[in-house]
Amino acid sequence: MAELWQLLTEEDWDTPQVIVHRGKLLANIEAMAAFANRHGVRVRPHVKTHKTWEIFALQQAAGAVGLTCAKLGEADVFLQRGATSVLVAYPLVGSRKLERLFALLARFPEAEVQTIVDSPEQAAALAQAAVSRGLELPVWVKVDSGLRRVGVLPGAPAAKLVRVVQKLAGLRLLGLLTHAGHAYGAASPEQVAEIGAQEAACLVETAAMLADQGVAGLHISVGSTPTVRVSGAVPDVTEIRPGNYVFYDATQVQLGAATPDQCALRVLTRVVARPEPGRIVIDAGAKTLALDKGAHGSDALAGHGLIVGHADAVIERLSEEHGVVQIAADSPIRVGDLLEIIPNHACPVVNLTDELTVIGEDGTLETWPVIARGKVR
Amino acid sequence: MAELWQLLTEEDWDTPQVIVHRGKLLANIEAMAAFANRHGVRVRPHVKTHKTWEIFALQQAAGAVGLTCAKLGEADVFLQRGATSVLVAYPLVGSRKLERLFALLARFPEAEVQTIVDSPEQAAALAQAAVSRGLELPVWVKVDSGLRRVGVLPGAPAAKLVRVVQKLAGLRLLGLLTHAGHAYGAASPEQVAEIGAQEAACLVETAAMLADQGVAGLHISVGSTPTVRVSGAVPDVTEIRPGNYVFYDATQVQLGAATPDQCALRVLTRVVARPEPGRIVIDAGAKTLALDKGAHGSDALAGHGLIVGHADAVIERLSEEHGVVQIAADSPIRVGDLLEIIPNHACPVVNLTDELTVIGEDGTLETWPVIARGKVR
Repeated sequence: MAELWQLLTEEDWDTPQVIVHRGKLLANIEAMAAFANRHGVRVRPHVKTHKTWEIFALQQAAGAVGLTCAKLGEADVFLQRGATSVLVAYPLVGSRKLERLFALLARFPEAEVQTIVDSPEQAAALAQAAVSRGLELPVWVKVDSGLRRVGVLPGAPAAKLVRVVQKLAGLRLLGLLTHAGHAYGAASPEQVAEIGAQEAACLVETAAMLADQGVAGLHISVGSTPTVRVSGAVPDVTEIRPGNYVFYDATQVQLGAATPDQCALRVLTRVVARPEPGRIVIDAGAKTLALDKGAHGSDALAGHGLIVGHADAVIERLSEEHGVVQIAADSPIRVGDLLEIIPNHACPVVNLTDELTVIGEDGTLETWPVIARGKVR
Repeated sequence: MAELWQLLTEEDWDTPQVIVHRGKLLANIEAMAAFANRHGVRVRPHVKTHKTWEIFALQQAAGAVGLTCAKLGEADVFLQRGATSVLVAYPLVGSRKLERLFALLARFPEAEVQTIVDSPEQAAALAQAAVSRGLELPVWVKVDSGLRRVGVLPGAPAAKLVRVVQKLAGLRLLGLLTHAGHAYGAASPEQVAEIGAQEAACLVETAAMLADQGVAGLHISVGSTPTVRVSGAVPDVTEIRPGNYVFYDATQVQLGAATPDQCALRVLTRVVARPEPGRIVIDAGAKTLALDKGAHGSDALAGHGLIVGHADAVIERLSEEHGVVQIAADSPIRVGDLLEIIPNHACPVVNLTDELTVIGEDGTLETWPVIARGKVR
């Protein structure tokens, strides 16, 4: 496969470097938009994967109704660039966070900022802060569909929190929201599909229970990249929030959610040593590739990324600036060669770089700044 | 134990945040300087741990003769701030890297920039580039003392490369250098000591072999934080290059190289949820704590950091922005509480943050920018 960057001289590249194949990126965004159109669901992509205005702009052009993020600092940089609807999908706790949330609302009065609630106490503190400022905040009730991270359990516990939120002045209930991140621990594509079905079903059932209690009109928001094609196709689901699909990565390949060829984000690295015939060292280490061997701390993948065109090479271990790769003793790889790696998990790779080098279909290069890199607060 | 940050109101802190206890930092730097003085070895600390000018300035004040780093981009920011002797301890390969090296030398003609060589071919390319510019580069021969990453094997292979380098115009041989990073995989403090002894011995023996061949006066540079107290105390060793000792971390604690109380770098995090009695969620995830479970890809540690004052709590899994922590069902920890975490590996934690919040012995706060963060090239 002739890769586009090979149109340039190998010598032209300083390494390591995070590159994006623009053609693959566009195809991934269009495919998700087409899926959403087909099923009549809105797309509110999680921008943690790319942290880049240019890519969110492409998602908007393809119909995204707004964005999802985890931190106020991420919301801030996207609002500065002109985002009009932002969901901060993280439980905001403590007076400093609430002050920062309302400061953001004051700075961007035209924008809608949504967030989540996951307990009566956390919801009450948020409501009180909103009321004291004469505001009403749009919120989702966060449901735990099996990830066992944050959120209330579906069914009666979720229905109970919904009724609490409905009674709180200062909050405006949007609906039920979940993220089936445990799909990343699935053993097969069939199990991914099963988790996707459960993801949607537990919210749909909770909404039905609430409808019986007279609470109607709730939106239902689901979706991780591996589960979204199942959960997003369930009638009654109104919104999906996939993130990783813009790039995909070796984790998605292993789950059956993408092919290697669809993976749009790659790391370009150079072979810096071949101390023995069966071992090379590359200049991409954990500071570039991150140490993920799956998502949410799972340990599903054997190596630290896929080397394009060298299926038998295994990235065995990473220290911060070195990748140690096992190759066949008669491999033609030489010191000085460039290699292209599909990382295990694209999101942390983006968070480790200040910019993405984007390679157009015609070989042109653009640099897109990672504006939300490092926004942990 | 009353921690210094508790002098402030818990509400004052926005989280997560990387903090440094200045008193512990100073004690760690002084102890290493005292060790080096006692044994008559120079200290050339690896700055990858802190990436911060202020901390290197403290190391210099304590007698460091220069610094070690891995990348030209790191060398650049420290030279800009006034460093006078920099070792780039990484095999520089490819014309772009060599151009950048010589551009750096041209910009900082008063500074000394050293690097390493690890094969005849790589040494020859470096030598040729230096000769063509009328320069002579000070270099170390990199020896693999057991890490199996880069470097030539000790004994005859290393001696052979030394003789090659000696004949190359454009290179000035400084001596033999190694890093026994495999000590991080040791099962006990005794094994760490054994690896430390081997680290020094293999260079000393190689130097003796070379002395018999008429090559005398070679410097010998060793040292990782766990092995340095053994290898640095060996007669004939002239320089040590520890990095992690300024902060220490849970990996060093597990290896017996430090106590938790000596760990100067901590992550301040807030409890954002307690969905069930035995599970809390904290706002420090892999984007703050990194995923290291030991160094160089080892898997030695059970959790993702030590929570100060809560020895029974286990940070079970990290997603990017969440830490999921198992606690006793009757634990007094509440949503909104601040917790202080000693991370597994301090170096990548620093690389994920733009600044360190430094807490003085009197509770005063300073912000030190991480000037070399993200310099992977």
